[in-house]
Amino acid sequence: MSTEKRKVAILGSTGSIGTQALEVIAQQKEFFQVEVLTAQNNADLLIEQSKLFRPNAVVIGDSEKYQSVKDELWNLDIKVFCGAEALCQVVESTEIDIVLTALVGFAGLQPTLKAIEAGKQIALANKETMVVAGEMVTKLAREKGVNILPVDSEHSAIFQCLAGEWSNPIEKIYLTASGGPFRGKTKDEMFNVTRDQALKHPNWSMGSKITIDSASMMNKGLEVIEAKWLFHLDASQIDIIVHPQSIIHSIVQFQDGSMKAQMGLPDMKLPIQYALGYPKRLQSSFPRFDFASYSQLTFEAPDPEVFPCWPLAFEALKKGGNLSCVLNAANEVAVDLFLKDHIRFVQIPELIEGAMSSVKHIVTPDLSDLLSSDLEAREWVRSNS
Amino acid sequence: MSTEKRKVAILGSTGSIGTQALEVIAQQKEFFQVEVLTAQNNADLLIEQSKLFRPNAVVIGDSEKYQSVKDELWNLDIKVFCGAEALCQVVESTEIDIVLTALVGFAGLQPTLKAIEAGKQIALANKETMVVAGEMVTKLAREKGVNILPVDSEHSAIFQCLAGEWSNPIEKIYLTASGGPFRGKTKDEMFNVTRDQALKHPNWSMGSKITIDSASMMNKGLEVIEAKWLFHLDASQIDIIVHPQSIIHSIVQFQDGSMKAQMGLPDMKLPIQYALGYPKRLQSSFPRFDFASYSQLTFEAPDPEVFPCWPLAFEALKKGGNLSCVLNAANEVAVDLFLKDHIRFVQIPELIEGAMSSVKHIVTPDLSDLLSSDLEAREWVRSNS
Repeated sequence: MSTEKRKVAILGSTGSIGTQALEVIAQQKEFFQVEVLTAQNNADLLIEQSKLFRPNAVVIGDSEKYQSVKDELWNLDIKVFCGAEALCQVVESTEIDIVLTALVGFAGLQPTLKAIEAGKQIALANKETMVVAGEMVTKLAREKGVNILPVDSEHSAIFQCLAGEWSNPIEKIYLTASGGPFRGKTKDEMFNVTRDQALKHPNWSMGSKITIDSASMMNKGLEVIEAKWLFHLDASQIDIIVHPQSIIHSIVQFQDGSMKAQMGLPDMKLPIQYALGYPKRLQSSFPRFDFASYSQLTFEAPDPEVFPCWPLAFEALKKGGNLSCVLNAANEVAVDLFLKDHIRFVQIPELIEGAMSSVKHIVTPDLSDLLSSDLEAREWVRSNS
Repeated sequence: MSTEKRKVAILGSTGSIGTQALEVIAQQKEFFQVEVLTAQNNADLLIEQSKLFRPNAVVIGDSEKYQSVKDELWNLDIKVFCGAEALCQVVESTEIDIVLTALVGFAGLQPTLKAIEAGKQIALANKETMVVAGEMVTKLAREKGVNILPVDSEHSAIFQCLAGEWSNPIEKIYLTASGGPFRGKTKDEMFNVTRDQALKHPNWSMGSKITIDSASMMNKGLEVIEAKWLFHLDASQIDIIVHPQSIIHSIVQFQDGSMKAQMGLPDMKLPIQYALGYPKRLQSSFPRFDFASYSQLTFEAPDPEVFPCWPLAFEALKKGGNLSCVLNAANEVAVDLFLKDHIRFVQIPELIEGAMSSVKHIVTPDLSDLLSSDLEAREWVRSNS
């Protein structure tokens, strides 16, 4: 990293990843400067963050909150914008070096594409971008010479293990999974699990959408799809292994049989800092892993009967085209319905599977195909739940 | 690696590492060519290997066997030499690209220095070289622009984890230890252990000297010293962790708190091939690690009371100068005496400790000081056992 500060745009600064990224930046002030902050609804926190980090511009998604944000920030020389279009425009600013995409869900796709088009480095915390449009996104990034630096702990682990190894063929990768709060349950026991149980993740503190995805193991399915595109793999080169302690964050196996793993305490600040500071590892005060506290690390195969979501992701990958997009959209709506207590937990995979067989399969979708497949899948889940 | 074959000299080709290196080369014929083979005593195997791999030159250490080797190879256009001096000369051949130093003990030092002086890349399987003269060897390698590629599985693991990370400061490293055949024994139980028990290593198939060193955990002590010099560390940055399954071969922790581990089945052919082929990982048919066979990896602290050898290595490092050389020489003689049933197992650390406090401490030894300290320590152990 040069002596100049790296200028960061954080899309989704009030969410779990966004707030942790700001914690990292607050501890590494000599390396980073906040250029843009954006939030969908949480105007109060966006205002508070803006007063503290003094970005050049902010975007609030919800138009009803635009005026209040503007009123609070008018005298701080901070530009205030509103809406999805502004989000896509603001990432093009010449002042930005790297864009952290920490938006939730499908909403992350378009601003990410805009940022790549503008040649910005991407710290990718929005896995849906890759799930929905991995082929398109990685192709554009290659054309624009843009690094996509994964923030997901598993993909960050793989990326870290690939440092210095980019010319050595990957034989396979293991994505580790904690197994979530329902690890060890039987299929029957899953029938009655509640929202509160699903929201209690054993190891990671995350937003509610991704926490439910962890409980259903759809999160791992989405990560399989993300990994395929990030690391140019075939689905057959990707394995999921349940590792309840969440210390080994993922593993690469090379063609000589050697495996490299990245390890550490489960703390998202580390992969966030790694992506923002790449290729430099900045000194941190994060708590360190200690073998005295972890005398054993355990591993088990994931159960496809109790957790039918991750096999659906492999199926979507194998069939290709718009199916990952459909899977993602159906999952977003189903998780939302579950969080609102409208459906049971076990209905999540059922609804996704239904959408996958109902929405028209498009083998080589363009962006507008993806947008309409997304809408169609959402509609299907809403009308069939 | 260029399309030209890499030309390899194997010093100690009839030992455990040497024979495994030849197995690797036999499987990777399009990448490697054997240029030199050397052996101390095992003329029969040296002859057999030479007929198969057709080196340009061979060296037999034992002068009594010179004529028979010469007689067997005269019609194959293979030059045959004899003795320690020939060993030092043969590594200087312009035809050699990389020298695998798989000699046992102190004997590895001088030919390694000669090879570095001649600008050859070094695949280092003789840890005593680094233990005795790590400062001198690494300084010379830097001056000559020579890579020292470690073959010890632990140091290979660290080296592999440092690929692409050489500008990122290391916070600490963990060298993993199987714990050997006596793991879990009490101090009292160690009093009666036998040679046969000590020679039964649970995971690794190795020569008898290193197998005894594993049983006493002196092997890990020597590796701590080796790691200090190979990776420019302070003793306080090196930890030993007992990991009985020998799957994680060692771990690096960087200054951001992230850890990288290299893993795989315990098979020396992998680090041998990695060192010979570096930076390329050649496709291999080595058996692959499988989580189904290893559902848990366990870790425990090493016991300094039951295994007093490794703390002696830390002491030698802290006091510096010729003390690591003394420790190594005393250990070589003590292990030899134990293998000949002249002393008990528990006398090994006692004799080393005695030599360390008896041989004159030289703070900045030159090569001749090291040679005389080596002799003095050997003599002390012989007369006090």
